[in-house]
Amino acid sequence: MTGTSMIQTDAVVIGAGPVGLFQVFQLGLLDIKAHVVDTLPHPGGQCIELYADKPIYDIPGTPRTSGRELVASLLKQIKPFGASFHLGQEVTSVAPQADGRFLVETSHGTMFLAKTLFIAAGVGSFQPKRLKIAGLDAFENSQLFHHASESALFAGKNVLVVGGDETAIDQTARLAQAGPQQAKSVTLLHRRDVLQAPPEVLVRFDALRINGGARFQVGQVTGIDSEDGKLKAVRITDVDGNTSALQVDMMLVLLGLSPKLGPLMQWGLDMERKQLLVDTEKFSTSIPGIFAVGDINTYPGKKKLILCGFHECALAAFGAAALIFPDQKIQLQYTTTSPKLHKLLGVEPPLVD
Amino acid sequence: MTGTSMIQTDAVVIGAGPVGLFQVFQLGLLDIKAHVVDTLPHPGGQCIELYADKPIYDIPGTPRTSGRELVASLLKQIKPFGASFHLGQEVTSVAPQADGRFLVETSHGTMFLAKTLFIAAGVGSFQPKRLKIAGLDAFENSQLFHHASESALFAGKNVLVVGGDETAIDQTARLAQAGPQQAKSVTLLHRRDVLQAPPEVLVRFDALRINGGARFQVGQVTGIDSEDGKLKAVRITDVDGNTSALQVDMMLVLLGLSPKLGPLMQWGLDMERKQLLVDTEKFSTSIPGIFAVGDINTYPGKKKLILCGFHECALAAFGAAALIFPDQKIQLQYTTTSPKLHKLLGVEPPLVD
Repeated sequence: MTGTSMIQTDAVVIGAGPVGLFQVFQLGLLDIKAHVVDTLPHPGGQCIELYADKPIYDIPGTPRTSGRELVASLLKQIKPFGASFHLGQEVTSVAPQADGRFLVETSHGTMFLAKTLFIAAGVGSFQPKRLKIAGLDAFENSQLFHHASESALFAGKNVLVVGGDETAIDQTARLAQAGPQQAKSVTLLHRRDVLQAPPEVLVRFDALRINGGARFQVGQVTGIDSEDGKLKAVRITDVDGNTSALQVDMMLVLLGLSPKLGPLMQWGLDMERKQLLVDTEKFSTSIPGIFAVGDINTYPGKKKLILCGFHECALAAFGAAALIFPDQKIQLQYTTTSPKLHKLLGVEPPLVD
Repeated sequence: MTGTSMIQTDAVVIGAGPVGLFQVFQLGLLDIKAHVVDTLPHPGGQCIELYADKPIYDIPGTPRTSGRELVASLLKQIKPFGASFHLGQEVTSVAPQADGRFLVETSHGTMFLAKTLFIAAGVGSFQPKRLKIAGLDAFENSQLFHHASESALFAGKNVLVVGGDETAIDQTARLAQAGPQQAKSVTLLHRRDVLQAPPEVLVRFDALRINGGARFQVGQVTGIDSEDGKLKAVRITDVDGNTSALQVDMMLVLLGLSPKLGPLMQWGLDMERKQLLVDTEKFSTSIPGIFAVGDINTYPGKKKLILCGFHECALAAFGAAALIFPDQKIQLQYTTTSPKLHKLLGVEPPLVD
């Protein structure tokens, strides 16, 4: 956690998925600037994590797109509004203040004092999947890692990479690379003998195994051995049920991400079946000033569709504007005709009346 | 009115604007085929009538489009669902039947027996603007017209065209064109001396005036003279207040369209300030089976945005599916992953898992 100054803002959006991004747009049209926080190191949420290259047919007015293309379009659309992104960090706490604002703090120590808060957290924050082995978690960040970290940490060590996808293979190759930061040994462990990666990546990995730069082993971690508070070895059980020990200094577990609701369960918001209860007028949660949009919310009739999240953003933005500008009457203006919106969007007004 | 057979259908959508079109899509995903009725001779509603070539910036995922482009995209998107369009006709009556269905009748005599009805009528049906002159309406369809009609009707007649836009100029030129159907005389009357049309149209019209094919007069119709039930002349008052009479056999009034709620005010649906009251769970009106989506409806928080209409379509479609398939549990499926939806959309499933 690093100390930072307090960021005072009208709006913090939690979640940079498609709905969080469109929330920035709807706030922008009402002249409200937003800060966006996401656990992932990039915007896009589920669109990027779960279906980056898969087709989407039901975005209205877009007969076919993909997760990646939709996110790119939304990022282009919200560009005029200059939102600040705070990525790779999770909002850990939200505390209402006496003046009606919210103190919002992230896992990186970023702190916001925000007039309104928009939870667009989808199915939750994407967290690395973990091995469920007794005693293993004690080594987190000393000998156990769940993200690709600096190679220097692994230099000269016996490293076990657990995983079977492109990311796991890439990291194995990186750690095995000759140079001052090369690991002493690198073993890639996967539960079955088929790795999931494009053919060219597999070809490169085969070459690496053949020249002895890395080992590949099929099996699962079923236990660990430690001594004097240090992880010394993992026990690996193969498909036939035979268990062997492998000497390990460092473990890099890369089993993909899975969504967790995480800290927001503790913020005192009314929930129903792990969803945030909202009204359908402003998509406000049970705490005024905190709105919830997209897959994370629930109300009668709720469908977890991106296009429904877009609507929710629009009404939530108006709900927030009433709080942020209490003395103004907030009017709906149209992007087609409003000179004020054209200025905010940074576009020329149409030439023809 | 022409007699037709009765069309039995699961769904009739009233209004072919962007929201009516997307209603077809959402129904299609639930395997419900729709018939669409619109007063205009083409799909698109306000998008075409009011801002065909103006920019729209707030369709989610589409940073910039126009009314015409949006309608084209939506027509492409709904193509797989093969909706039947019944254009240029207004729904005049809706009568609930004993079996729960609705008898829907249009101004052309088209009749539907529909399980569900979706009112996506926007600001109402677009009706030609009319001159408010005592006694004039009596000549409707004999000597007074509000749409470009067959030239034969006007052949050899003294014609007054009222209007100042491109359509009015085009019709004036058409009626003045040499040939067997040429009018005896054609006068274009506009309230001011500036016509609203592209420069090339104005140049052509100037040429027509110079060669005597058509006359242009500035002023307003302030009265009519009739004799033996026939319209004989109109009285025209110029900008200085001077009134003169012009001998007229036929009048073509082309002052543009303005929306009218029309017959739907009489269908017994609960309204509030000329909007249809709906719930936010299914966007059902006060009559079960009749849904209202888009600018025509109201509920707490309502914003008249196209993107809100899209959301309303999705939830209304699920509301209708529960009525149309009472014995089935209707599940939300995703266009990205559902083989059933891929089949309905007529697309190949994605190659990569």
